[in-house]
Amino acid sequence: MVQSLVLSVDAMGGDSAPQVVIDGLAQFLEGQTGVSILLHGHEGHLEPLLADTPRVAEACELRHCEGLVTMSDKPSQALRKRDSSMWKTIEAVRDGDAQASISAGNTGALMAMSMMLLRRMDGVHRPAMTALWPTQRGRIVVLDVGANLEADGNQLMTYAIMGEAYARAIRGVERPSIGILNVGSEEQKGHEEVRRAAELIKASGLDLNYKGFVEGNDISAGTVDVVVTDGFSGNIALKTAEGTARLVASFVREALTSSLMAKAGAVLASGGMKRLRTLMDPSNVNGGVLLGLNGVSVKSHGGTDANGFATALRLAADLARSNFTSEVAANLARVQANNQDSSESAA
Amino acid sequence: MVQSLVLSVDAMGGDSAPQVVIDGLAQFLEGQTGVSILLHGHEGHLEPLLADTPRVAEACELRHCEGLVTMSDKPSQALRKRDSSMWKTIEAVRDGDAQASISAGNTGALMAMSMMLLRRMDGVHRPAMTALWPTQRGRIVVLDVGANLEADGNQLMTYAIMGEAYARAIRGVERPSIGILNVGSEEQKGHEEVRRAAELIKASGLDLNYKGFVEGNDISAGTVDVVVTDGFSGNIALKTAEGTARLVASFVREALTSSLMAKAGAVLASGGMKRLRTLMDPSNVNGGVLLGLNGVSVKSHGGTDANGFATALRLAADLARSNFTSEVAANLARVQANNQDSSESAA
Repeated sequence: MVQSLVLSVDAMGGDSAPQVVIDGLAQFLEGQTGVSILLHGHEGHLEPLLADTPRVAEACELRHCEGLVTMSDKPSQALRKRDSSMWKTIEAVRDGDAQASISAGNTGALMAMSMMLLRRMDGVHRPAMTALWPTQRGRIVVLDVGANLEADGNQLMTYAIMGEAYARAIRGVERPSIGILNVGSEEQKGHEEVRRAAELIKASGLDLNYKGFVEGNDISAGTVDVVVTDGFSGNIALKTAEGTARLVASFVREALTSSLMAKAGAVLASGGMKRLRTLMDPSNVNGGVLLGLNGVSVKSHGGTDANGFATALRLAADLARSNFTSEVAANLARVQANNQDSSESAA
Repeated sequence: MVQSLVLSVDAMGGDSAPQVVIDGLAQFLEGQTGVSILLHGHEGHLEPLLADTPRVAEACELRHCEGLVTMSDKPSQALRKRDSSMWKTIEAVRDGDAQASISAGNTGALMAMSMMLLRRMDGVHRPAMTALWPTQRGRIVVLDVGANLEADGNQLMTYAIMGEAYARAIRGVERPSIGILNVGSEEQKGHEEVRRAAELIKASGLDLNYKGFVEGNDISAGTVDVVVTDGFSGNIALKTAEGTARLVASFVREALTSSLMAKAGAVLASGGMKRLRTLMDPSNVNGGVLLGLNGVSVKSHGGTDANGFATALRLAADLARSNFTSEVAANLARVQANNQDSSESAA
C-alpha cells in the first residue's frame, strides 16, 4: 500500500509567486505517488494557472484565501492576517489536514506564525532554523542559522538532538555525526555555553555520534553531518559562505573571460562549467525547516526558481514521511528523565 | 631624506623556517630603501643561509637566540621562554630598537608575548586580531578574528576606532567606511552588544564614516572597508570563508577535469586560471596584526611561502611608517573626554 501524504502549500509567497509554486509542484509531483496538495491562495490568480497544468490541478485542492503577507510585513503585522494564504497553509498542519507546510514567503512572518500555530514540542525551549549546506561530501545540516540569536548549553544540546534526527530523516544516514561550531577543536576552547553543551551531550545517556568541536572550515569540508551553533554565529557563517562562493564565482568568470584564449577554453570546457553551475546552484539545497515545533513548516527561499521550490517540497515530503518527531520526542523525554533522576539522587 | 625603518624579525617561526623567512626578506628588501632588519634566531641555522643571500645579510643584524617556541607550546609555557627568538623579536620593539615585529610562529604564544611585552594602549580593554579579506573591491579589514571570544559594545567601538586607522594606514583610504557585523542591516536587529556599539559610535563625536550594520555576505562583497565583530563570530566567519573558497575551488577543478573537452578548455584558459590562482592566493593577504598595543606585532601565517612572508613584512613596514598609533590614541582620548564630560554634566 502506498501511504498517502498531504502537503499544505502557500501559493502566494516568494518573489515569483504563484507561477514558480505551480511549476515547482509540477516538477515535484512527477516523481511522486500518493501525494495530494492543499493549495492556499487567491483563486483569481490560481485558477487560470491550474487550468494550464492539469497534472497539478488533479493533485490539488484549492483553498481560497483573501489575505496576503507581504515581504515588508513585520511579524507582528503578519500575525494579524488570519485570512492570509500563509496563515491558512500552516493552520492546515495544526488541524491535521496536512502533514507538512511549505511557503516561500516572508521569513520572519513564517517563523512567528509557525510558532504560534504549531507551538513548541515538550522539552524544546527555542526552535532552530536549519540550513542544508553543500560540502565535499554532499549536503550537511547546520542549525541554528538565525531563529534565535543566543543559545545556552542546554539549548545547543536540544539543537544537536533535533539536527541528528533531521539528518537521518532527510539524508537517510543511520547515525549522523554531530559537531559543535567553535573557534578550535580542543576541549578547553570556546566560551562557556559551547563547553557546557559538549558536557551535556556527553552526559546525556543518548546514543549520539558526537565528534566534538568543529571549526568554520569544517562546515564546507563536511567533517560532520550536523553542525550545531547559536543563531547569531550560524547566520553569519551561512551568509559569509554565500558571499564567498559568489566572490570566487566572479573570480572564475573574470579568469575565463580575461583573454581570447581563455574565452575559447571556456567554450570547450562549457560541459564542465555547466556541471559546476549545477553543483553551486542554490536551488539544489533549498528549504529550511524550523525544528522543534509540533508539525513540519518548511521555508523555501523567496527568490528560488521552480527547481528550488520542488526541492523544498521533496524536503517537506521526506520529513513528513520520516520518524523525525517521534525520535526527537523520545530523546528529549530521555534527557528530561535523566535530569530528574540526577536531581532526585542529589536530593 | 629617506626615513630609516628597523623591523624586528623572528627567523625561527613557521612551518618552513628559517628558509622561508630569508627568502621572504629577499623579496621584500628588493622594493625597499632605508630599511634594516634585526634578525632573531639560532646563528648555527642562519649564518649559512645569510652567506648565500648577501642582499639580505647586508640589511640584517643577526641576534642569536638559543630558545625556540614550538607550535605545540601553550601560551603559558611560551611565556617562560625569555631566550626564544619570538620573545626577543617582540622585546626589540618594546625597547625601541625596532618599529615593528614579524613572526610566523605559534599564534597563541605570539599574542600572549605581545600583550605582556607591549601592553595595551590607554583606553583599550582588549586588543583585537585583524584579517585582510579579499573582496570584489580589493582587501578589506575584519576584526576581531579571534583574540577575544566576547566583546561588549564599548570594546566593539574601540575595534571600530582601531580598524579605521589601520585601514587608512595600510590601504591609504582617506576615510575608511565601517560596518558592524550582524544578522540584518536594520537598526533593531541583533543582540544588545552590537546595538550598543552602534549607539556609542554615533554618539562618540568622532568623525567616523560609520555605515551601520552589515551581514556576512557583505564581507566578500566589500560593502565597507572595515568590518567590526567579536572574536568568536569573526573567527567563524574567517574560517567558514576559507572552507567555502576551498570547496568552490575543488568544484572548479572537478568541472575542468570532468571530460577531455573540459581538460582541453582548461589548457586554453590556463592564462586566466593562473590569474584566478593569484586572486585566490592567500599569500597575497598574509599578515594579521594584534591592534591595541603600544607597538606593532604582525603575525604571518605559519604555513605561508616566501611571497606571503614578504607580504607580512610590507604590512609591518606600512603600519610602522603610518600615523596609526597617534590617530588611535587621539580618538580614544576624545572618547574618554566625551565620557567624562557627559558624566560630569549628569552629576
